[in-house]
Amino acid sequence: MAVNNKGKVLLAYSGGLDTSVILAWLIEQGYETLAYIADVGQEEDFESIKAKALSVGASKVFVEDLKAEFVKEQIFPAIQANAIYESVYLLGTSLARPVIARKQIEIAEREGCQYVSHGCTGKGNDQVRFELAYYALKSDIEVIAPWRLPIFFERFAGRSALLDYAAEHKIHVAQTKAKPWSTDENLFHISYEAGILEDPNVTPPKEMWKLTVDPEDAPNTPERITITFKNGIPVKVVNHNDGQVETEAVKLFTYLNTVARRNGVGRIDIVESRFIGVKSRGCYETPGGTILRTAHMDLEGLTMDGQLRALRDQNITVPYGKALYNGQYFSPECEYLTQSIEFTQRNVSGDVKLKLYKGNTIVEGRSAVGAGAKLYDMQESSMDEQGGYNPVDADGFIKVHSIRLRKWTPQQ
Amino acid sequence: MAVNNKGKVLLAYSGGLDTSVILAWLIEQGYETLAYIADVGQEEDFESIKAKALSVGASKVFVEDLKAEFVKEQIFPAIQANAIYESVYLLGTSLARPVIARKQIEIAEREGCQYVSHGCTGKGNDQVRFELAYYALKSDIEVIAPWRLPIFFERFAGRSALLDYAAEHKIHVAQTKAKPWSTDENLFHISYEAGILEDPNVTPPKEMWKLTVDPEDAPNTPERITITFKNGIPVKVVNHNDGQVETEAVKLFTYLNTVARRNGVGRIDIVESRFIGVKSRGCYETPGGTILRTAHMDLEGLTMDGQLRALRDQNITVPYGKALYNGQYFSPECEYLTQSIEFTQRNVSGDVKLKLYKGNTIVEGRSAVGAGAKLYDMQESSMDEQGGYNPVDADGFIKVHSIRLRKWTPQQ
Amino acid sequence: MAVNNKGKVLLAYSGGLDTSVILAWLIEQGYETLAYIADVGQEEDFESIKAKALSVGASKVFVEDLKAEFVKEQIFPAIQANAIYESVYLLGTSLARPVIARKQIEIAEREGCQYVSHGCTGKGNDQVRFELAYYALKSDIEVIAPWRLPIFFERFAGRSALLDYAAEHKIHVAQTKAKPWSTDENLFHISYEAGILEDPNVTPPKEMWKLTVDPEDAPNTPERITITFKNGIPVKVVNHNDGQVETEAVKLFTYLNTVARRNGVGRIDIVESRFIGVKSRGCYETPGGTILRTAHMDLEGLTMDGQLRALRDQNITVPYGKALYNGQYFSPECEYLTQSIEFTQRNVSGDVKLKLYKGNTIVEGRSAVGAGAKLYDMQESSMDEQGGYNPVDADGFIKVHSIRLRKWTPQQ
Amino acid sequence: MAVNNKGKVLLAYSGGLDTSVILAWLIEQGYETLAYIADVGQEEDFESIKAKALSVGASKVFVEDLKAEFVKEQIFPAIQANAIYESVYLLGTSLARPVIARKQIEIAEREGCQYVSHGCTGKGNDQVRFELAYYALKSDIEVIAPWRLPIFFERFAGRSALLDYAAEHKIHVAQTKAKPWSTDENLFHISYEAGILEDPNVTPPKEMWKLTVDPEDAPNTPERITITFKNGIPVKVVNHNDGQVETEAVKLFTYLNTVARRNGVGRIDIVESRFIGVKSRGCYETPGGTILRTAHMDLEGLTMDGQLRALRDQNITVPYGKALYNGQYFSPECEYLTQSIEFTQRNVSGDVKLKLYKGNTIVEGRSAVGAGAKLYDMQESSMDEQGGYNPVDADGFIKVHSIRLRKWTPQQ
Repeated sequence: MAVNNKGKVLLAYSGGLDTSVILAWLIEQGYETLAYIADVGQEEDFESIKAKALSVGASKVFVEDLKAEFVKEQIFPAIQANAIYESVYLLGTSLARPVIARKQIEIAEREGCQYVSHGCTGKGNDQVRFELAYYALKSDIEVIAPWRLPIFFERFAGRSALLDYAAEHKIHVAQTKAKPWSTDENLFHISYEAGILEDPNVTPPKEMWKLTVDPEDAPNTPERITITFKNGIPVKVVNHNDGQVETEAVKLFTYLNTVARRNGVGRIDIVESRFIGVKSRGCYETPGGTILRTAHMDLEGLTMDGQLRALRDQNITVPYGKALYNGQYFSPECEYLTQSIEFTQRNVSGDVKLKLYKGNTIVEGRSAVGAGAKLYDMQESSMDEQGGYNPVDADGFIKVHSIRLRKWTPQQ
Repeated sequence: MAVNNKGKVLLAYSGGLDTSVILAWLIEQGYETLAYIADVGQEEDFESIKAKALSVGASKVFVEDLKAEFVKEQIFPAIQANAIYESVYLLGTSLARPVIARKQIEIAEREGCQYVSHGCTGKGNDQVRFELAYYALKSDIEVIAPWRLPIFFERFAGRSALLDYAAEHKIHVAQTKAKPWSTDENLFHISYEAGILEDPNVTPPKEMWKLTVDPEDAPNTPERITITFKNGIPVKVVNHNDGQVETEAVKLFTYLNTVARRNGVGRIDIVESRFIGVKSRGCYETPGGTILRTAHMDLEGLTMDGQLRALRDQNITVPYGKALYNGQYFSPECEYLTQSIEFTQRNVSGDVKLKLYKGNTIVEGRSAVGAGAKLYDMQESSMDEQGGYNPVDADGFIKVHSIRLRKWTPQQ
Repeated sequence: MAVNNKGKVLLAYSGGLDTSVILAWLIEQGYETLAYIADVGQEEDFESIKAKALSVGASKVFVEDLKAEFVKEQIFPAIQANAIYESVYLLGTSLARPVIARKQIEIAEREGCQYVSHGCTGKGNDQVRFELAYYALKSDIEVIAPWRLPIFFERFAGRSALLDYAAEHKIHVAQTKAKPWSTDENLFHISYEAGILEDPNVTPPKEMWKLTVDPEDAPNTPERITITFKNGIPVKVVNHNDGQVETEAVKLFTYLNTVARRNGVGRIDIVESRFIGVKSRGCYETPGGTILRTAHMDLEGLTMDGQLRALRDQNITVPYGKALYNGQYFSPECEYLTQSIEFTQRNVSGDVKLKLYKGNTIVEGRSAVGAGAKLYDMQESSMDEQGGYNPVDADGFIKVHSIRLRKWTPQQ
Repeated sequence: MAVNNKGKVLLAYSGGLDTSVILAWLIEQGYETLAYIADVGQEEDFESIKAKALSVGASKVFVEDLKAEFVKEQIFPAIQANAIYESVYLLGTSLARPVIARKQIEIAEREGCQYVSHGCTGKGNDQVRFELAYYALKSDIEVIAPWRLPIFFERFAGRSALLDYAAEHKIHVAQTKAKPWSTDENLFHISYEAGILEDPNVTPPKEMWKLTVDPEDAPNTPERITITFKNGIPVKVVNHNDGQVETEAVKLFTYLNTVARRNGVGRIDIVESRFIGVKSRGCYETPGGTILRTAHMDLEGLTMDGQLRALRDQNITVPYGKALYNGQYFSPECEYLTQSIEFTQRNVSGDVKLKLYKGNTIVEGRSAVGAGAKLYDMQESSMDEQGGYNPVDADGFIKVHSIRLRKWTPQQ
């Protein structure tokens, strides 16, 4: 029997095979081990996970509902920033890590844990995201990353070693056969990677996708909604098919997930560049987030000055996506970016009308309120009227812009 | 009767009401007027346009087939660069202007025209695109832009004045009622703007869309194709439903248009920021281009180094889109960008498998050939195996990256 | 005699020949003309300029001391941002224009002027800077720019026409011969351009330079000062040679000018790209600003996170310099940039020791206070000690960074 | 006595204490050790270093003159790119590492060495620069970095342990007392760091500086030179004081070092952000490089289109500096940047006149030849003449640029 003389560890615990084995193994190594279960909206039975942690030997278990801060502090700023990685990935896992890690450090401090631990592998992005957050928030924290410790990863080289150890330690393992891929789920998205997906030319099987129906199975009739934004943040969703209205942040976002899910919106399948320099293939479903991003960008078209938008695209969207992906949310540069985002969203208020249909999010119209409504002037942009400005001005505009171009000598 | 004593003008002529009136008016003003009709793939009867120009009084008419150079010199580099404007618009009109203007200048020089003319309005982007190209290619060319001349625009303030003038001058006007929007069409796309579209909250009518079927009317059965790229340029398309194969540039691109059209792929509806500082609403169909962009970006995920890709996204994609949109294709900076593109595409060779279904372009797999195939290593990226590198290395990687973050003091 | 029936104009008046002629001419054209003299620190006798304006016929004259707002709202943020244009020009004229224009609009509104006017030429940057500021601050203001009105510039084509008109209208002209260049002076800098400087290969004559002594004539003994910054803003200067101390913003900046002036610091001579696309040659003296920029950047080296600094260099320094140069200070993008600057300066507090010697500003040491002092850790950065981190970590760091590079195939 | 059964190592050898001890220690560990001495222009007696390596036990010694490739392949492209790090550091050490590492890998391959080794510490940038280059050029090379091996660094923790070992192994150590700082020297620069410099507030002692005289000791009479560039590369230097002319690359650069040295040009003292996240203080002398950079940037002002220059500053200057500093010269992104540089330099041909005086590099004039000479047009840029363009055009230019600004609502 182990003696708890090495100090206290707070383990980020999911209830799955890996972290259950890690929990037992940490205890075996002589650590008093506390389990921390973060509810960021994944579809799980948290009570049974808690019970499992206690049964494996956790000295305390904390289940924390982080959904509200996840939506308000991570998801909504990401929507305001149009955050994206490599032009395609909406950063679902990256966004959840900061709130999970921050609460873990908070509990570790409160409970007097010298160590924190997690079940991330040694090849992925998540180890980096968790640990850089830990160190940034508490510079003297010590991290136990079993999948990077030879004593652990050499012992558990393969699923059968884990299963054997689980059996030995009476860790309950779900009877369902393990899926041939790994997932990470939260309110914003689910990811699928590894296993059969490692061949980038293999089409994911239809049954893999969990958070959205196949576009081919979605209804034949479109569904129409309107999203209202205030300063770039969604504050209301109205469904014109059934009249449902949502305004509270978590409910609104959850409802967008529901609507997107049934219309097959939000799937992607990519090969991405991990921070550690390895390419990997990932499939993702981001139902509500996909709708919100489309709607938000559209409203910016109407309400945001073009020069500001161009600057923001380069200054915030790109580095924010990179910082999030690379696990540097808690950093001087990301703090600066986060603070700057709101200055860009002052005018982004109004409505966007959308049609959802078999995987498509189609913008059908938009309108602005407040100062942003000044930017679009129907008479001025009209090709048919002479309003707004004197066409003769364009003459000087073009002439002056041509000055430097007239001196250009094309390369031979 | 007019006397041709003011010199020679080469007018970019479309056969429509505006440029027909301009043609007659230029002659009336005392210019010998030659007409130039650029075939960039729009669906038109060029012979009848030519006949019309002659009947209105053009002293010569040139019909130029620019499709091959449009595809090879403009469309394919844009695909290689993932060119886009304000994250949404694929630049269909912008891309065609340089090839049209270059040929116009070439003919003007050959025919000894001191002037070139066009029918663009004084509020749009196209006047800028044409004229900056003219001036860059021939710094002493003189431009007659009737819609910016008070003598012209005050006389023709409204469609009825144009119609009256056309009637007077026996200019044939199609009996079909004018559409309540304007269009610009080429092999890459069609645009719709003005008229009823000027209210950004009005949903475009179903009958407006010309180059694609409505996703709701597209087939219920998906169509599967594979696109092969060599150095970022599409060199083969195979249709797995019917076995059709295309490899020649123009045919390949035209075929992608055909396939995209029937599956409802490539519609967008946006409010954009024109170069002249006005916001305007545009609807666009870019069928084949939408498929190609999706496929190309996906293959880059597999074959392009992540750091190179990030740099290219900032260094080329963004400024290239801006330069194209703002009519500065013939410029020192765009020449530099164009020359640099190919260095980024060395490894972008391989196949992308796509499913087209009711508006969706869904990637189903990809594979690489050549040096780019080295970048993705299944064993290395596998979460299940210990291949590739020692997980212990990630420890040092994270520790070193944490050094600066541990010194961060969050703002109070 | 003129009748004032065209409305009221507020003219930015310098007391020089050009604006005196413009003043008389505006009155002659039938405008009630008010004169506005901005004191942004140029060395002038404002009372005599005021008297001159009244004598020429201004109905009212306003002399406004803008030095404090110029220093605090324009100069100090520019120092915080390390603002620069084309890597060399410190933006002295650009920085003053916003405060001058803002006060002009404020007075124009108060006095009920429908028009504002200025004496800028039609080829320079300043017309753009003034007018874009006017329009941004009061969108319906009307601008009279005589040097762009054919009726004016054709009449006054050459200095002798101006002198003749001045003589006719009893406008006093200084007896000193006109200098063979133009200048613009304020507290931050003086510019020299035009005239003999138009040949970019002509070395400026020694007597041209006004705000600094020739480095060759500066003292043979260096002068040592320490500048203290708080959040990137200079709050104290101590002169170690004579013990003088300055802490109030305007006095501090003026004193830095004094010290820099006598040590020959702050001259540049460049060819720059004007916004309007013309290249022009400018010589500038920015004495105190040159010292401050060097000191500020040095302190950032000690106190600012490297990633934040790199981001700021791209995100703020570059576009801020461009927006200032191009006259777009009052714009959505520049407002966003200005607001973001302070987030980057949180830690930039401490002292910089400088030696001034015959044109050189030599950093001799620096120290930090507050959170920024944490970033530099002598033991950690020491090559001689094993403190700070385990060298073995660097092994993993390098190995992981090499992963993608090992897959690189150099171009043949 | 050691047996050479562990394989062959090629050690980058400097002749100093550290690498001499490493050489002996590698042999002791059972490696056949070959020594490689790179001549990148440092002032050394290479024959005596070679003799020392042999005396310590190297099985072979290679002295390689890399000066020509260093100048042509590294220094000149860096000048063309205006390469700089953190706005101040001219990258002298970073630039030499690629040529040193490339030759080391070339010899290692030829000689059948499985290993390469170096004497860099575990805290600096140079370990990264060497090793990333090694791995990029030969992905299966193995690196022995003794200062990161506990078996080595624990044994040699302090200079006295090294001296003792040297004495034991009859390694000759120069009798001169070790300097209280470290240096790295090559043709481009010398660096000073560590030791007494670790306190960033300590002013470097006068006797530290080696490659330049103190500005206070430089001649009282200025020296005037003209540098001629062709496509951004210096091809001729003329000294107007004594008539000396240099045109061959290495001689020209060496001569610029000579001239700069005697005039006290090229010193800097900074705190920089190392790649590994540690801040460190470095002092540098880059005599000829400082002159060249000033001259090159000045000529670009005259000959390079402003938009191209702005794009290059962001697209090349910044990432090139970063890639060099971080040791990623041999990488996909740096290859792309290097290839792109030349497109930006097409027009950068002409002369720059400079005055060197007590630390100052003062531009006194410049002229262009070739296509770049078209960009500056004296008449056009003249404020005094009405040539070039119609001032009325500026009216439209400003009006159109004001369109979006008139819609701006400042934040309350």
